[in-house]
Amino acid sequence: MTKLLNIGMVGYGFMARAHSNAWSSVSHFFETGYKPVLKAAAARNASKLRHFADMWGYESVESDWRALIARKDIDAIDICVPNDLHAEIAIAAARAGKMVLTEKPLARTAAEGLPMVEAVEKAGVPNMVWYNYRRVPAVMLIRNLVASGKLGRIFHYRAKFLQDWTISPDVPQGGQGTWRLDVDAAGSGVTGDLLAHCIDTAMWLNGSIDSVSAMTETFIKERRHAETGKAQPVGIDDAAAVMARFQNGSLGTFESTRYARGHKAAYTLEINGEKGSLSWDLHDLNRVQFFDHSVEGQLRGWTNILVTDGDHPYMGHWWVPGLIIGYEHSFTHQVADFLDGLKTGKPAAPSFRDALETNRVCDAIIASGKSGQWVSI
Amino acid sequence: MTKLLNIGMVGYGFMARAHSNAWSSVSHFFETGYKPVLKAAAARNASKLRHFADMWGYESVESDWRALIARKDIDAIDICVPNDLHAEIAIAAARAGKMVLTEKPLARTAAEGLPMVEAVEKAGVPNMVWYNYRRVPAVMLIRNLVASGKLGRIFHYRAKFLQDWTISPDVPQGGQGTWRLDVDAAGSGVTGDLLAHCIDTAMWLNGSIDSVSAMTETFIKERRHAETGKAQPVGIDDAAAVMARFQNGSLGTFESTRYARGHKAAYTLEINGEKGSLSWDLHDLNRVQFFDHSVEGQLRGWTNILVTDGDHPYMGHWWVPGLIIGYEHSFTHQVADFLDGLKTGKPAAPSFRDALETNRVCDAIIASGKSGQWVSI
Amino acid sequence: MTKLLNIGMVGYGFMARAHSNAWSSVSHFFETGYKPVLKAAAARNASKLRHFADMWGYESVESDWRALIARKDIDAIDICVPNDLHAEIAIAAARAGKMVLTEKPLARTAAEGLPMVEAVEKAGVPNMVWYNYRRVPAVMLIRNLVASGKLGRIFHYRAKFLQDWTISPDVPQGGQGTWRLDVDAAGSGVTGDLLAHCIDTAMWLNGSIDSVSAMTETFIKERRHAETGKAQPVGIDDAAAVMARFQNGSLGTFESTRYARGHKAAYTLEINGEKGSLSWDLHDLNRVQFFDHSVEGQLRGWTNILVTDGDHPYMGHWWVPGLIIGYEHSFTHQVADFLDGLKTGKPAAPSFRDALETNRVCDAIIASGKSGQWVSI
Amino acid sequence: MTKLLNIGMVGYGFMARAHSNAWSSVSHFFETGYKPVLKAAAARNASKLRHFADMWGYESVESDWRALIARKDIDAIDICVPNDLHAEIAIAAARAGKMVLTEKPLARTAAEGLPMVEAVEKAGVPNMVWYNYRRVPAVMLIRNLVASGKLGRIFHYRAKFLQDWTISPDVPQGGQGTWRLDVDAAGSGVTGDLLAHCIDTAMWLNGSIDSVSAMTETFIKERRHAETGKAQPVGIDDAAAVMARFQNGSLGTFESTRYARGHKAAYTLEINGEKGSLSWDLHDLNRVQFFDHSVEGQLRGWTNILVTDGDHPYMGHWWVPGLIIGYEHSFTHQVADFLDGLKTGKPAAPSFRDALETNRVCDAIIASGKSGQWVSI
Repeated sequence: MTKLLNIGMVGYGFMARAHSNAWSSVSHFFETGYKPVLKAAAARNASKLRHFADMWGYESVESDWRALIARKDIDAIDICVPNDLHAEIAIAAARAGKMVLTEKPLARTAAEGLPMVEAVEKAGVPNMVWYNYRRVPAVMLIRNLVASGKLGRIFHYRAKFLQDWTISPDVPQGGQGTWRLDVDAAGSGVTGDLLAHCIDTAMWLNGSIDSVSAMTETFIKERRHAETGKAQPVGIDDAAAVMARFQNGSLGTFESTRYARGHKAAYTLEINGEKGSLSWDLHDLNRVQFFDHSVEGQLRGWTNILVTDGDHPYMGHWWVPGLIIGYEHSFTHQVADFLDGLKTGKPAAPSFRDALETNRVCDAIIASGKSGQWVSI
Repeated sequence: MTKLLNIGMVGYGFMARAHSNAWSSVSHFFETGYKPVLKAAAARNASKLRHFADMWGYESVESDWRALIARKDIDAIDICVPNDLHAEIAIAAARAGKMVLTEKPLARTAAEGLPMVEAVEKAGVPNMVWYNYRRVPAVMLIRNLVASGKLGRIFHYRAKFLQDWTISPDVPQGGQGTWRLDVDAAGSGVTGDLLAHCIDTAMWLNGSIDSVSAMTETFIKERRHAETGKAQPVGIDDAAAVMARFQNGSLGTFESTRYARGHKAAYTLEINGEKGSLSWDLHDLNRVQFFDHSVEGQLRGWTNILVTDGDHPYMGHWWVPGLIIGYEHSFTHQVADFLDGLKTGKPAAPSFRDALETNRVCDAIIASGKSGQWVSI
Repeated sequence: MTKLLNIGMVGYGFMARAHSNAWSSVSHFFETGYKPVLKAAAARNASKLRHFADMWGYESVESDWRALIARKDIDAIDICVPNDLHAEIAIAAARAGKMVLTEKPLARTAAEGLPMVEAVEKAGVPNMVWYNYRRVPAVMLIRNLVASGKLGRIFHYRAKFLQDWTISPDVPQGGQGTWRLDVDAAGSGVTGDLLAHCIDTAMWLNGSIDSVSAMTETFIKERRHAETGKAQPVGIDDAAAVMARFQNGSLGTFESTRYARGHKAAYTLEINGEKGSLSWDLHDLNRVQFFDHSVEGQLRGWTNILVTDGDHPYMGHWWVPGLIIGYEHSFTHQVADFLDGLKTGKPAAPSFRDALETNRVCDAIIASGKSGQWVSI
Repeated sequence: MTKLLNIGMVGYGFMARAHSNAWSSVSHFFETGYKPVLKAAAARNASKLRHFADMWGYESVESDWRALIARKDIDAIDICVPNDLHAEIAIAAARAGKMVLTEKPLARTAAEGLPMVEAVEKAGVPNMVWYNYRRVPAVMLIRNLVASGKLGRIFHYRAKFLQDWTISPDVPQGGQGTWRLDVDAAGSGVTGDLLAHCIDTAMWLNGSIDSVSAMTETFIKERRHAETGKAQPVGIDDAAAVMARFQNGSLGTFESTRYARGHKAAYTLEINGEKGSLSWDLHDLNRVQFFDHSVEGQLRGWTNILVTDGDHPYMGHWWVPGLIIGYEHSFTHQVADFLDGLKTGKPAAPSFRDALETNRVCDAIIASGKSGQWVSI
């Protein structure tokens, strides 16, 4: 018997759309025993909320997230608002006994995130942070291969997340669509927005990070605020480079920027081990590059694996070999795993607690960028 | 005001899933004035139909497509069954005044397709054949560039569609999933299944084809039937190569096979003109390769355009730059265009009549493969 | 003891340079027991010949190739002049007891080439045609893999050689550098110039061709002659597409043109077998793409082999892994193999007789292009 | 009138071969007014030296480099021996009034290199360090584009040089071929061997580096010595990651290792500016990737420029468009530029003084790797 799961969405922006699509589509492709229902959405801007709810078929709307949380008919709260609002909403939802999911990062800082972890654990509610790239089939394949020991001892991990959308000084800070440039709303710049993805995947694939040394930079020092129009100092990191030492003895390098002309969402990662190497690029998310040193000498090379076969992670649920999937499917997979977790009682990772660790590393990056010193996690 | 459009689906297989996804998702991303409703699905196999209907939320089921067509509450019939059934269903649906959409090819042969064209035109009902690859944003971008004259005089068009799934002699013919190997059900082998896509796109991009010369081959001469288990001669073309002359004086080459080890759904196309060239590959469907001869000499090269920006065809409806979409989105776009066509009164291409032309070229390919002679269209 | 081998070069153009480089460099990298000496070069244009001889260190020059052949101190005649001169020079050289090497194709037609074959065989002199691409390490690796049965039964062979240098109607025909557009000098257009390479490699890798059907086209019907300035009809094929049946039952497709904007010397080939596929691209000549179906399912893909390791063909003679070689190295390898052949008494392929077979296929292509019929070889 | 330039080579290894090829081949392709003559080679190992001299046609040999320097008939000394010998030989050669060229790096440390600079400047002799990658046509094209302002304000520079040849603990340190693992002979590990190339190119393209912070690691702590067989601590850096700040305000990241399985000589670089980006990969050395933001929005992308046209740097001296060159050509170009410098009186860069700056940055990297602190240059 399929159970209904009533979703209460907070927000209506880019991420709210991606999550709504996941909740809507999952039961067309995965049989989890649950059918999500887009029960209600909450936001302050009534006309935008109305349009969003109509497009996605939310049954009702609330002008205040508190009202949403107060509703008996809501099973899970999904938080898709700027980072500075995650903590308050998540804690309230947990206290109300709702399942809680929040868009990444967990919070602006680990200090802000810790009470969120405590709240969900105390309430005993299922909880998850949407580090969706773990659920790209190619990334899951990498995870499986690394975990199976296919690469042997790991020497290197490197990841980058490059964009170019803030090069113009005319891009404002604050406001919808550009709150990511406002340090108060976002907590940090590329570190919390982009590096957080890289760090989450890195620790999932290669274990804990012991220490980091970082270089951060704000290229454009002043931007007008989107709402007030007033020029204000920019408080975020426009770019960050990181050297890291993992607990397993391997070396990590990370870089993120919104000033790399020509790169849109260039999240790339590579891991080098004694017996082989693996790499991946978000722009071609259905592909894994694999170098297998066990192959006969003259035939060795990087194998371009098109991850679309039925025996590839998640892909048996979609189409036929050769037919690719896109960005939003990673969210659908995350919902599928979340629902599976409800069934089995083992909520899908990353939990709030898992994600707190990523916040800790991000905090260390920001601190090291300021001090110029290595920082232990 | 959004109007409801009640869909009656015939079939429950791979294509029925892709179409159902398109009908379900379109109104989340496109505002067309119509909201498709998955009203009813019809098929003979009750248990498979039931499962399919449940997964997609069809409101009801029918064990016979005739019953579906007879229903007053159905606006459009969508045909997702083997090719040999297209004609009868489509003609009946048209006569009943339904909009009719059929999976490609229109029919097994042009002779079989002609009465279908006549039926929909006589009934005056909106009609469309699902040559979905036209709606890949990258392919639409190519269409726009070619149509704008960006390439100048065209010299060459070449396309291939390579697969490898029938290399094993153990693959049966006939039955669900393998009816494409049964000449009675499919009409032809790779010609109707794969080359038909190549021909449809080619004529859309580069105009009519005057004549063709083809080489066809059946590598495995006998296969057991999926249902009877009896070995029977194979009647389809396993592979086909084609030389073509377009009306505009350019030369075309086409090739398709299910025996190209390592290729899954390798539909590639390229067009060479005096001023530039464009190419595309289904495996990386979000990319266009463009060579622009007007660029300063030492900077000329093939530009790899990641077709994910807001000003690229259809992409403003999805995510943000750099985030790719997948195979099934092409169907969603086709539905969006079909619904726009209802609103404007100009049904989206390709109509049954457009698709008949592709059947004619396919017939000529099969004939030339047998005779070894050039065949005029 | 190293023996000197005195080379008599006929010509001073592009190919004379590539060959001179090979004769000059071979003994720096290969120990064959022979050291080529650039003894003398012959051509009619005295000033150009002088400059060429100075650049390459030819010890002397002759204004007539007959004088070169008459010299006692010349061991081998290397023919690097337009195709219409190959036969007369080669036959005279053979009769004079010289080793004879000629740039490809052997002759303008098989009829013209046959007496050349008879002459070298009657004289019993070592002979070779410079189908240099066989000696690209990546191509030799493909040859070794195919010959070892790695691909199993072969289904498909396809090759293209695309260029774009004659798109402008201002390119003249005839004269130095453009004699390849003059049917009298060249014998044919892209067929003898470019397809000849594709055919040579194809038959070397995949065996004899039984029959072909071709489409040829001359896009620009009239060009001025480089020397007279007079507009004249163009007699060559600007483009050619070919369907072929190999003796082993596999299908071949070939295409060549000088009107594919954006392609400079895009010789690509691919061979698909039951167990795997291999492909290669001259623009990236150090790479082989290999799909190995014997690999575990979810790890299968196209492996990009960088052919620069010491155990790759020829590469132990060059640098270290990762460091690529270029176009002209293929000629150096051909000389190394030719010199090895002298030592072992088994002259390196392709001999004049081997190359005659390629001329036969080219003749059939031209004939089929005119008749529209399949032509048996 | 062409002048002869008599070369005295010190060494017979990999680099001596690459340089000898350059001296030998340059006058076949470039008209510089000079013709290098391989006059004499010096080394201690008589049989290896003899073989080397025979392969390359050196007219004579010397068992001691001092004897070579003492010879009146030698114009230029070319140093191709381990790094610890550069200083003594170069200083002696300069004092003897010879032109001096040394393989990179200039010396093991800047302290060791400074007297070399002083010696050549005091003697007033032409001098050059073989940072050959500057002369790859693609890299020179990048240099020209950056220098012309095509990229606008620079934000990021990143380079990596990845190898995998020392992963096995069985690779010895010290001795011929493996002296690069011996800190006494090499001075450092990947920093002086590989990063030095990255740093040289980076400063040439993007200006001075102000400060660096580095992470270095020795993965295998003990290796036997190639000659003594005795296990000894490893003193070199197996891997190094670097964060850098350039004087122009841009951020740099560098990484090098010999433990990146699957990478052979993977020197890659990328530079991101306001108006565009450029990147390059040694494994495909004839290609430049260029993102030009000035292109019309929907046509923007990374253009893959095949740097083989006649108007590309150096390429007019080689073959025809589409035909690639290899690794060793970069040395031939360096010789061509060196000889041009002799003619014009402006010796080609990088001079000893230029290269000293690279040594300074490398010293800072090693120091920072030890201290964990930022180090100013």
